[in-house]
Amino acid sequence: MKQIIVVSLAVGLVTGLVGYNAAASGGADEGSAPALSELPAGYRDWPLITVAHEEGKLNDIRAILGNDIAIKAFREGATTYPDGTIIGRLAWDYHPLEESKAAFGAPQSFVAGPPKNGVQFMIKDVKKYASTGGWGYVEFDDGKPSAKAMPEACFACHSVVKDRDFVFSRYAP
Amino acid sequence: MKQIIVVSLAVGLVTGLVGYNAAASGGADEGSAPALSELPAGYRDWPLITVAHEEGKLNDIRAILGNDIAIKAFREGATTYPDGTIIGRLAWDYHPLEESKAAFGAPQSFVAGPPKNGVQFMIKDVKKYASTGGWGYVEFDDGKPSAKAMPEACFACHSVVKDRDFVFSRYAP
Repeated sequence: MKQIIVVSLAVGLVTGLVGYNAAASGGADEGSAPALSELPAGYRDWPLITVAHEEGKLNDIRAILGNDIAIKAFREGATTYPDGTIIGRLAWDYHPLEESKAAFGAPQSFVAGPPKNGVQFMIKDVKKYASTGGWGYVEFDDGKPSAKAMPEACFACHSVVKDRDFVFSRYAP
Repeated sequence: MKQIIVVSLAVGLVTGLVGYNAAASGGADEGSAPALSELPAGYRDWPLITVAHEEGKLNDIRAILGNDIAIKAFREGATTYPDGTIIGRLAWDYHPLEESKAAFGAPQSFVAGPPKNGVQFMIKDVKKYASTGGWGYVEFDDGKPSAKAMPEACFACHSVVKDRDFVFSRYAP
């Protein structure tokens, strides 16, 4: 269990979302409805909050996007986020750029390959998600909510940054 | 000169922009007007094209954004880009996330620190920038066009991907 928490922490620290490895934890509440039943309209056009790279088994490069409510709050340096905030995490395979590798004789530039590790969202609604700190969590795999989406596991890890309203990401200006 | 070209290549391969190290090349045309005199309005809200990490001296994590014309072209799988296309590259210091490092006992998650290596843009205008493959190039440091911005050096490196209209970045879905 400790290992699962640690792996989840690594995901959540960067994405603002956890639960990626939740299906393996044996504690899934797979019967609960996902926080979102469909991918948010236009999410791929949302402004960027920040970027990150995960080493180890995740081995991806990622972007954190936010809807208008999220972006406004981040830019104002919010310590709590209003209802309606949605934070999304996209990830791609971590690829050495071949042209760069050839020029240097060693990997130098790393770029985004095919999508990887699903698309994750955390949604703020203080009443609806009262049992998980006011945030709902969901992961989409191939455009559909994943059975791996586990708000309880997400919440457990996000509690590490409870003083930042459970959000790990910081805005990159 | 070879070393300078190689370093410039590393920047340009990922950013779609080169010229970062141009001031050291001894070939600067610092008297020419920058392709943009001011940062494009609202560029920080532009949708994401892709993300990348540069190792070595650059040691940054970066995002490539595009204006509406750019995004439309990328999503349509363009092999050439229309006039008015602007591609922007933002970069930040490459930071190990302390919470993650503490949990793992080693670096696992890497996130964006303070802005680094300027903000760069390439602007398509076939007639205006005919001498550099139809693209103008500019870097902003602290919000002002940098003397390091060298369209000739940018162009020299971008010629590596002449068959992709001098654009290194690929759209990350």
